[in-house]
Formats: sequence, C-alpha cells, structure tokens
Amino acid sequence: MLADLFSKMDELYEDMVATRRYLHQHPELSFKEEKTAAYIANTYEELGIPYEKNVGGNGVVATLKGGKPGKKIALRADFDALPIQEENDVPYKSTVPNVMHACGHDGHTATLLGIAKAARSLQDQIPGTLVFVHQHAEEYAPGGAKPIIETGILDDVDAVFGTHLWSDTPLGTIETADKEFMAGADRFEIEIIGKGGHGAQPHQTKDAVLIGSQVVTALQQIISRRLDPLHTAVITVGTFEAGAAFNVIADSAKLTGTVRTFDTAVQEQIKMEIENVLKGITTANGASYTYEYIEGYPPVINHPAEAQLVLDASKEVAEVQEANKVLPTMTGEDFSYYLHDKPGAFFFTGAKKEDHYYPHHHPKFDFDERAMVIAAKTLLSTCLAYQ
Amino acid sequence: MLADLFSKMDELYEDMVATRRYLHQHPELSFKEEKTAAYIANTYEELGIPYEKNVGGNGVVATLKGGKPGKKIALRADFDALPIQEENDVPYKSTVPNVMHACGHDGHTATLLGIAKAARSLQDQIPGTLVFVHQHAEEYAPGGAKPIIETGILDDVDAVFGTHLWSDTPLGTIETADKEFMAGADRFEIEIIGKGGHGAQPHQTKDAVLIGSQVVTALQQIISRRLDPLHTAVITVGTFEAGAAFNVIADSAKLTGTVRTFDTAVQEQIKMEIENVLKGITTANGASYTYEYIEGYPPVINHPAEAQLVLDASKEVAEVQEANKVLPTMTGEDFSYYLHDKPGAFFFTGAKKEDHYYPHHHPKFDFDERAMVIAAKTLLSTCLAYQ
Amino acid sequence: MLADLFSKMDELYEDMVATRRYLHQHPELSFKEEKTAAYIANTYEELGIPYEKNVGGNGVVATLKGGKPGKKIALRADFDALPIQEENDVPYKSTVPNVMHACGHDGHTATLLGIAKAARSLQDQIPGTLVFVHQHAEEYAPGGAKPIIETGILDDVDAVFGTHLWSDTPLGTIETADKEFMAGADRFEIEIIGKGGHGAQPHQTKDAVLIGSQVVTALQQIISRRLDPLHTAVITVGTFEAGAAFNVIADSAKLTGTVRTFDTAVQEQIKMEIENVLKGITTANGASYTYEYIEGYPPVINHPAEAQLVLDASKEVAEVQEANKVLPTMTGEDFSYYLHDKPGAFFFTGAKKEDHYYPHHHPKFDFDERAMVIAAKTLLSTCLAYQ
Amino acid sequence: MLADLFSKMDELYEDMVATRRYLHQHPELSFKEEKTAAYIANTYEELGIPYEKNVGGNGVVATLKGGKPGKKIALRADFDALPIQEENDVPYKSTVPNVMHACGHDGHTATLLGIAKAARSLQDQIPGTLVFVHQHAEEYAPGGAKPIIETGILDDVDAVFGTHLWSDTPLGTIETADKEFMAGADRFEIEIIGKGGHGAQPHQTKDAVLIGSQVVTALQQIISRRLDPLHTAVITVGTFEAGAAFNVIADSAKLTGTVRTFDTAVQEQIKMEIENVLKGITTANGASYTYEYIEGYPPVINHPAEAQLVLDASKEVAEVQEANKVLPTMTGEDFSYYLHDKPGAFFFTGAKKEDHYYPHHHPKFDFDERAMVIAAKTLLSTCLAYQ
Repeated sequence: MLADLFSKMDELYEDMVATRRYLHQHPELSFKEEKTAAYIANTYEELGIPYEKNVGGNGVVATLKGGKPGKKIALRADFDALPIQEENDVPYKSTVPNVMHACGHDGHTATLLGIAKAARSLQDQIPGTLVFVHQHAEEYAPGGAKPIIETGILDDVDAVFGTHLWSDTPLGTIETADKEFMAGADRFEIEIIGKGGHGAQPHQTKDAVLIGSQVVTALQQIISRRLDPLHTAVITVGTFEAGAAFNVIADSAKLTGTVRTFDTAVQEQIKMEIENVLKGITTANGASYTYEYIEGYPPVINHPAEAQLVLDASKEVAEVQEANKVLPTMTGEDFSYYLHDKPGAFFFTGAKKEDHYYPHHHPKFDFDERAMVIAAKTLLSTCLAYQ
Repeated sequence: MLADLFSKMDELYEDMVATRRYLHQHPELSFKEEKTAAYIANTYEELGIPYEKNVGGNGVVATLKGGKPGKKIALRADFDALPIQEENDVPYKSTVPNVMHACGHDGHTATLLGIAKAARSLQDQIPGTLVFVHQHAEEYAPGGAKPIIETGILDDVDAVFGTHLWSDTPLGTIETADKEFMAGADRFEIEIIGKGGHGAQPHQTKDAVLIGSQVVTALQQIISRRLDPLHTAVITVGTFEAGAAFNVIADSAKLTGTVRTFDTAVQEQIKMEIENVLKGITTANGASYTYEYIEGYPPVINHPAEAQLVLDASKEVAEVQEANKVLPTMTGEDFSYYLHDKPGAFFFTGAKKEDHYYPHHHPKFDFDERAMVIAAKTLLSTCLAYQ
Repeated sequence: MLADLFSKMDELYEDMVATRRYLHQHPELSFKEEKTAAYIANTYEELGIPYEKNVGGNGVVATLKGGKPGKKIALRADFDALPIQEENDVPYKSTVPNVMHACGHDGHTATLLGIAKAARSLQDQIPGTLVFVHQHAEEYAPGGAKPIIETGILDDVDAVFGTHLWSDTPLGTIETADKEFMAGADRFEIEIIGKGGHGAQPHQTKDAVLIGSQVVTALQQIISRRLDPLHTAVITVGTFEAGAAFNVIADSAKLTGTVRTFDTAVQEQIKMEIENVLKGITTANGASYTYEYIEGYPPVINHPAEAQLVLDASKEVAEVQEANKVLPTMTGEDFSYYLHDKPGAFFFTGAKKEDHYYPHHHPKFDFDERAMVIAAKTLLSTCLAYQ
Repeated sequence: MLADLFSKMDELYEDMVATRRYLHQHPELSFKEEKTAAYIANTYEELGIPYEKNVGGNGVVATLKGGKPGKKIALRADFDALPIQEENDVPYKSTVPNVMHACGHDGHTATLLGIAKAARSLQDQIPGTLVFVHQHAEEYAPGGAKPIIETGILDDVDAVFGTHLWSDTPLGTIETADKEFMAGADRFEIEIIGKGGHGAQPHQTKDAVLIGSQVVTALQQIISRRLDPLHTAVITVGTFEAGAAFNVIADSAKLTGTVRTFDTAVQEQIKMEIENVLKGITTANGASYTYEYIEGYPPVINHPAEAQLVLDASKEVAEVQEANKVLPTMTGEDFSYYLHDKPGAFFFTGAKKEDHYYPHHHPKFDFDERAMVIAAKTLLSTCLAYQ
C-alpha cells in the first residue's frame, strides 16, 4: 500500500511543482485568500472528493473515506502569503506587488493537494479516513486554525498531523520535538503620541520619531536584563512608521511587533515590561502612548508518542536520510490549537535550497521543491502507521 | 495715494478671505500646483494684467505698469501646500486627503492677488512698476525661486520684497532683521540597509528598525556635542519608514530630515558628522547605508537699508502697533535667492490666532485672516516709500 | 558510621557558626587571602591533620587518612571575599571597608573545617582518604582551582565533590544537574579613549562618558538581537569609571564586565560582537578603544553518575526534604576545572534566609547558618556512598 | 609713567616665569589652597605691601596706595588648580598626583604678583590705589569671589578688572565683549539608585550602569530638541562612577556635571528637563534617583564702557597686535560677582602655545608664558586710563 502511494507521489511531482508555482505567482494576504480558497475547492471538485468551503473563514476541508476501516486522521496545510515584495528573479515570481509566498505555504498547499490526488487514485486501499484541512490565515493572529476547529468539523478526528517545509534544514532531514516545538507568538501595536510642528522648531514639539527610536532601543533591554537568562524569548519591532514630510516633526509614530515565548509567566512579564518602557520613555519626553498587546498563538506542544511516530514513519521514506529530535524554534504557528484537544504532532521537512539559502520571510526566500514529495510521503507513512 | 490704496485694501478684505479659503480647500503639493497656478493666471486674465505662466515651473509672474514713473519692484508670494492631514474642523478645511496649506501660503497668494486688484483699480496713480511673483514650490528644495530667477524675468527689477504670515507673532506686529533673518535649510535622505528575516530569528538578520532607531538617537549628539555651542543649528529626522509586517524583521529603514544652519562651515560639519554616525552605527551592526545630502535654500540675509525701510513703511499702517527687529528664526525660505542679486527684505506679518494657536506645519495650523490686509498694506507702503 | 558523623556534625554547629562569623568579619579579596589561609592552616595544625600551605597560591590542602581502606576523595571549599561594602546590620558584620563575604565562602570554609573536625574525631572508622581542598580566589579569574590542580596535589584523587551554600534555594533542599550546571564566566576590560577638555567646550573634545554610555546601551543588543534566542548567555558591565571633575569632559572611560555562556561558539560570537560594537560606536564619535577579553572559568559540567550519587546520598540526611535536578544557573565557578579530569559533582545546598533574602553579591547578602550542617552531612554521606 | 611700568614688567619676566612654574609644580584643589595662599601672603610680606589673608576663605587681598591721588581699582587673579593628572613632560610638571594647574591660574597669580612688584617699585608715581585680589576657589561653586566680596573688603573700590590667559587665542590678541562675555555655570549631582546583585542574574537586579548610561544619552536631547535652537547652552556629564567589581551588577551610579547658560529661563528649563529625563528613564527601569542642582556662577556680563576702555588701553601695549570684541564663550567664571555692583570688565589675554595647543582643563594644557607680561601691561594700562 505505502509503496503504491509513494510511487504515485513520485508521479505527481511535476503536478505539485506546477500547482506550487501557480500559487506562488498568485499570493494573497491573510484573511483575504478568496482566490486561493476557490482554487483549492475547485481541485477537490474536479477530484470528486467531498469538501466544505468557507470553513471558519476562507478554510476548505475535504474528506476522503478510504476503502478499509481505520482511524480518522486530519492533515493540515496553510495557504496565506505575506506583505513582502519578492526579490527573486524566477519565472514563477509573485505577480502581486508587495505580496509574496515567503514562508512556503504555497508548497504546503501543493503537497496536501498532491496527497489528496494520490489517495483518491488508491482510495479503495486506504484504511480509515483522511481529512484534508486547508487553513487560511496562519500568518496573522488570531489566525485560521481556531475558527476552523470551532466549527466542529474536526471533532471526530482521531489525530492531527502537519508539516512545515523548512528552508533552514537540509533536504532529506525530518525534524520534530517531543513536547515544546514552536514558540507562542503575540503581536503588539504601539503609538507614540508626541506633538508635531515645524522641523526647525523642535522646542515647540515632542518629536515622535526620536521618542519612538528610544523606545525601540530600550525594548532590547527587556530580553537582556529583565528576563531570567535561562528563559527564551524574542521581542521584535517589525514596523516603524512616522512622519509625512522631511521638514515636519512627526506628531505620532506607529510601531508594531511580535513577542515569542514558551511560557505564560514570561509572556506576562514581557507584556508588562513593554508598558514600563513606554511609560518611562514618554514621561522623559512629555509625550504619551497607546499600547495594545494581542495574545496570539500559544506554543506548539507536540504529543510525545505522535512525535515519535512521525520520526519512525519517516524512516519508511527512502529520501529521508535523517530524522531528528531538535531544540524548539522561536517561530510560531497556530497548529498549536489542533494539538490542544487532539493527539498529533507537527514537524519540519527539510527544504533548504543549497545554492540559494534565505531565511523564511526574506524577500529572496525559496525552497527545494523536491521537499514536497518528502513531506507528502512522510505524512502518508504517518497516517498508515497510526492505524 | 497710500490712503486710497489702503481703503481699497479694506474693501477687498472679504474678497481676500474668499480667495484664501478657496485655496485652502484645494491645496497642492510642491511642484504639483498646476490647478493653483491656473487659478492665479485666470485672476490676472480677468483683471487684464499682463502675466506669464509656467515661469520656471508652475510660477506665474504678472506686471502692472503704474501711471507714473518710478522703480520696478517685485513682490513675491508662494503657493504650494504640505503633505499633512488637516485636523481643523472649519468650513474651509482642506478637501484633499493628506494635503494641507499648513504654512499660510494660501494667505500669501490671496494677499498678493488683493494687492494686484487694488493696484489695478488705482493703476494711474501708481508710481513705477509692480511685478507680482507667484512662486511655486517653496516647501521642497530645490524650490521655485531659483528657476524663476534663472528665467531672467526679474533681471531688470530694482528690489524685491516679501512677507510671511506668521502664526507665532501677534496680529499688528511686523518683524524683520537687519541681516540674518532665516536659516539655510537642507534635506537629507538615509537608507539603512540591514538584512530582513523572520521576526523570531533576529540572529539571522540585521534589524533595520533597531539600527535606524540608534541612528536617530545618535544624531542628537551632533548638535549637543560636536558643534560649538555658540553656533545655531537644527537636525530633524522628519520621517522614519521601515518594515512591512509586524512579524518580519525589516531589511531597510528610510529616514528623511532637514538641517538648518546660518553658516557654511557648520553646514559642512553637520553633513560630515551625519556620515560619521551612519558609518559607526552600521559598522557596529554589520549593516550598510546610503546617504544623500541635498543642499537646500541658503539663509535669508536681508539688506539692512531695505529691512529698515520695511519697518519705517509699516508705521504708515494703522493696524501695525509694533515693528521690531528680531533674532533670526531657524525656519528656511527660498526667498534667499531673490536677495542674492537684488536689494530687498523679507519680513513677518503677525498673524497669530489668539484662541487657536498652533505652530506652522501643525495639522491644526491656522492664522488670523485680518493679517492679510496688514501684510498687503505694509508691502504697498514699502513700494511707495522705495520710490 | 554515618550516624556517628552526623551527630558529631550536630555537636559542631556552634563551632562552625563561630568560625564562619569570625571569617565574615575578616574578609579578604581574591589572591590576597593571606590571613584567611593562615587561619585555616592553623586549624589543621591544631587538629594535627597534615596539610600543605601556599598550594598554587594561598591554597591550603589537608589530608586525612581514614582508619579503613577506601577511595581518596577531595572536598573543596573556597575562601575569598568580594569588593562590596556590607550593608547588613549584624554583630558579625565585615570589619573591612568595601570588602565582604557576599557569596558565602565564609560558610564554605567553616563547613569544610567542621567536616575535618568531625572526621578527625572519628578517624579510625573513616574509610579511604579525605582531601580537604581550601581554595583561594574563586571570585576572580584565572582563579585558584587551576593552579592548585597544576601542583599535582590532586593527581591521585579518585573523585572531587563540592557544594555552594545557595541563598536562592530554601533550607532543606539540595540541587544539582546531570551535566551542565553552572555557566562559563569570562571577564572583559574596555577603555574608551576620547579627548578631554573643558566641560563648556564639547566640540573640542570626544566625550568619553557619552561614548561609554552608548557602548553600554549597544551591548544589550548582542543578547537580544545577535544571538540565537535559544542560546543562553549574559553580558554585564559591572563597573563604569570616567572623569575626575564635574566640569571637565572625561578623556577616558573604563568599563569592566563579565560574559556567561555554556557554549564555546556563543562565547566566541560575543567576544567578536563586543568588538564590533566598540568599533562602530567609537567610529561614530571619532574616538578609539582598547579591549581585553579574558577567558575565565569554563562551565561546570557534572558527571552524571556522581551527580545522581549526591542526590541519593543527600536522602540520608534528615534535614534534606528535597533533592532535585534543576536547570543550570548562569553563575560561574572554577570548580569546573576539578571536573575536567576527575569524576565528581558540584551541588547547591539551600541556605535561604526566609526573612532576609538578598541575592549573592548583594550588600545585604546573608544565609541561614543551619545550611552548613546540611552541606557537611551531604558531603560526608556522599563520601561514604562513593566507597 | 606707563613706559616706566612697562619696562619694569619686562625686567620682571624671568621672575614671573619662576613664580608661575613654582606654583605649577605645587597645585592645590579649590578650597584647599592653604600653601598657595601662604606663598602669596609671604610675597606681600616681603614686598612690604599691606595685605589681609583668609579673606572669605583662602583669599589674600593686598592694597597699594599710590603716591598720587586717584581712583581705587581692584585687579583680581584666581589661584586654585584642578583634579587632573598632568600629562605634560616639562621640568615644571605638577608634583602632586591628580592635581594640576590646567587652567592657567598659576599664570594669573604670577601676573598679579608681577604687577604688585612693578607697582611697588614705582609706588610714588602711581595714581590712586591698586587692590590686588588673590582669589581662591574659582573652579568649584560656590567659589571664592562671593565670600571675598561679602567681607566688604571691596566696598569702596571704584572698578574691578581681571583677565584670563587664554590658550585658544593667539599671543598678542586681547579679547572681550560689550556685555555677555562668559556663561553662567551650574553643577548637578545625580545618583541612580538601582538594585545590585550577581553579574549573572540581571533579572534580579536593576542595573545602575545601564540606567545611568541611558540617562547620559537621553540628556543630549535636551540641548538638541527641548531648547529653542537660538538659545545657547551646554550640558556636560563630567563624571560617571558605578560599580565595584566586574562581576557584580552595580546598585548605584553617580553622575556629576555642569550646565552653562546665558539666561535664567533657559537655566530653569534645563534644570526641569534633566529631572524629566531622570523620572522617565528610572520609571522605565523600575529604579529611582536623587538629583541635586547647584546653581553656580551667573554669566559674566561686562560693563560696555569699561570693556571698551580695556580694548583702547591694550593698544598702548606694543605686544598687542589685535584687540577684538568677540562672541561670548560657554565657559564660566565667578568674576561675574565682581561686576554685579561695580563697573569693570573681564578680558582674555591670548596665550596660545603654537606648537603645543591643548584646550583648558586638558591634561596637556599649557600656555605661552610671554602672555603674562602682556596681561600685566594691559591691566596696568587700563588702570591708568581709568583715572
């Protein structure tokens, strides 16, 4: 059975590449992925696999009942893109200005559609039921996972598995962790409210560019001085927007950023320390601020048995040379929600493009497309092993 | 003669207010003031005063030859607006999003058109020739003054005068200085070139938001530590733009700003010290930068005799209660170019709105419209006194 | 046997307290502990236990051969103090200005002398040989452990154990770790070389106070931005000395600090990143610097079997309510050297003074003296168990 | 008469150099100048000129009544040194570690003693009375001028003159200003109260080194952003002292500094803005502070007629090639007090050592000793002209 599925996957490689490249050229931002959702739904329509669309938003969930009895296992792929201007010079470059699949979700989608095609072609021999969860809005909290789960569509599922194509990991390597695998990811929004005025009369103003700059610098000390060095956390200010003219002192500066933690107490401390910094720096400058802290995805905590199962199952895949337990990563994922109630595990499928390596979210991000086949085979092997 | 002109100006008050408010509702950015230029040209067309349009850009220059012999005197008003979203709640609020007459150039234009109307109605009695210089693009270097002068249209003029409605100065006060009156104003553009990446993986990036923030903070020390404390100068970073997503570390930060000085050596020093800061901070962070320093308007240096003439002439205006020599201001003006080759002076006409005071370039900037009459009368009195 | 030793330790409690308090009143700085060394040597002299003094510096090593055959086990206690002005108001307060036993080494010494006294009194029954290693200079790299080891005096020892009285841990708790237990601790010394001058003429100077302050702030970003968030490290600037008069701009600023890591690659990265910060900030300011990085103690890496042995042996001690494996701590210890060649383990003996808690190195640091008995019993129990 | 005095001064040159070099080798800090005062008193004793010692502290005031009627004119010289380690390699190098005549007060004293000697030798021909005011403690507020004046010893004086040997001004040049000549000079003392602790456990502390560093950096913005750019002021942090050990986080940081202004409103604003910065930065860090602002010397405001007299009188001195009115300097002087009630002026005597130029208060400061003769002659010429 597995051998048949694997050889089917090999046959589908060109098709998966075509799908991925089409999606790469047509990226859509989180919560705005209507066309991508329609593309996915249409594929299931053509395959004749029953599906529901608009699940918890732009989500699409298809269900393939195999010809043999067995467990019901959900496989998840996300499909939103990022507000980044692609800088790759490739034939399949994004056609949408300032929007780019810079995290590989195009590949996730192509992989899961490939699995669906393979499974459909061998449906009679498939044990149990496969649920293909195409999730929108992974990149932007509150994300798509939670509303999809809240529809109840996964209530009777036995386990959930998912993978992320990972450009930091070599092709042929599968990585996961027993428990803590990916960090909790929050978002914050700050506005420094100064007082605008003529660029040549600073004394009549409260310079929001300068005050915002001091805040950015001071936030660094939360990590380096306020936290227990044994705790792991990240604070990033991703955007800084202030001022409209070179010769006008800005009355407001807007900062947005992300906080990553593995622990609720650390999360709470950072939330409070950011406010301390804001209070202090604006006091020093006679300015004020607004501050919103939006708790995002909790950390992805794998179930140990299922994580081990993935590693074991991956050994059935010829292309997998290494299957490792690794340290957790600071990046976040709303896959965490699937693992709250259901057993399962999330893992990385090595997809490093050796001659063109850039980190996820970089304008030149890309991945080795052969990793899609490895991801698909590992997921299928896991599903069969879980029976 | 002066009495007749003054009483004509009084009659024209409502008309000037209407003109000013119309212009206020229809602001245009520097170098893009086509409609405003057309409005001005049209007024001269209707008045039957000869004019040229597209002078050195969007400039409009009209010439009224008086009925009596005398000198040829140019009066200048600028007419561009700023990229600011108006926050005043007035019937004549700007109708253009993010564009606003926040420096009073609408009033300058209405004032000069009012003078033209008054002079036209008493043309026979006017000695000499009045040249009405409606200049575009004062707010953005290289400005409109220079190209207008370079057309040669003012070559045979005997003197040039101009005024700025000034919201910091009470109504009824005229202010000028013997020599240094307004600062030289330059522009700079900086791009910090870091390395983007995932917001949770700072060690794989060079965080342009943080590096830019350090640059903004370090620039403060040029004024406080590198310059001779007896020298007067301002460095303002007006805009800071970096990052596209809260969870993506920005690969680039763009800063623009202005430098104000009264002295070439100080200007040169600041230009160099900014580069030292950029070199140092980017070295510390393994990043790089681009830096462009665009020399803008030189300082406005009045001619002492003409400055005194303005103060003396203003005493003919009943509404003028005080006429003072004052310390120079840090704000810049491309009126400086007119004074390079020709005698003349620039002065401030007090226009403070007592119950609604905001500095120039503030989103709530406004001025007391009665100042337009005072400005017009003082300019006319100066023209007659100069004969 | 163990019961006899334990009851002997109980009898010796008052004596240990007296010893500890005497030492507390007479603290000496690292490498200058002549009087303390003489005090220790004198005790062994009086006990009739053979000892050597001036071992690798101020070290004192005594050897007690038990009446029964067995292994040769070294127990180590350090005895240097810190340059801190004590702020406790206790009868045994330090009598030396600006020197204080603020890390509990007085207690370590009293504990080990107590063990020696107990063992001497029951020498016939003791199996194997006990080596009492009184080590000088733990607080200041290169420390006393290395030169003591290099004398060869411990070459024939079978294992080494040691403990730290720990004010963060409750009385009755023993803590250790399988492998990484305490961080590597390095020292750095920086001099910012500016240019001095009159406090009113900053432009003729390079202000070393300001440049040093920028360096301190910029160093924070190494932890928060340059390191992988999953790596654990600390950079602390402990001293900042600059300037001699309030109205003279300082020509030099001296900073000293410590770096803590568990990993050589991270240590190397920090060493280099500090230099990057220095290069950058001094470049931005036209200043220069000197920078010395003195590698200090490597991390304390326990031997797993011996660490387990300590926890098991501690359960023989009635006062021990908990014996835990814990996360490593960022503090450093030159006990690490003992564990390079010999089996052994280092552990914490809870010594928290519940109504007067201050961290180690704080001017109000103190510990619960009853912990000395617990430490002594745990070490003795470990020695017997190791036979 | 003047010619005789001038040739006497020329004769005394070697003697003045010897005096100056003796004083240079034996500098004493402000308010501790007992030996220098004794040396001065002894000189008057030997000259047979009546004097009083311990005037308002260590001050020495001698009075020489000339043989002819005339006005009573006080000439002042200060005689304290600075806490600086001399770095000059000269035979007359300071013999006192960390104390140095780095501002030329040794030269002032030698100059005034030289004048006294010359005047004594020609006493019969001298018109009026000369009062030689040797003032202690100019370098450290509240200074010596005020208590000397408060003794009443100068109550019947007609005018007061004084000079500063000035290493920034070429030999042969005299400089003064009509009114504002030297800035007001205040002192401030700040203590940042953090929380100390182990250098490896920052989260249990409030790091006073880091908080102090942020304060130093933030103070820069008061000058560059909070003050009207047309106002002149300086804020210098001269000393930063924090921490006792490289591996202990400092619980306190002590900063001292100086503020220079020409205007009470600016002085008040800076005083307040420093507190705002302290409040803000300590709030951001959960620390606290103490802050003392000690108003020092008011600005030196010359009397215009007397300032002109000095310039005119200096032209009688052959060595004077230029006598200029100059912009004010930011440095302060308690000579200001003498000018509050009495007419008079303060001026600079150019003393630049062309091949060895260092600013005042620099460890390598020195001056061209020939300037002492020029200073003496200019003061004498002024005294005669004032009659």
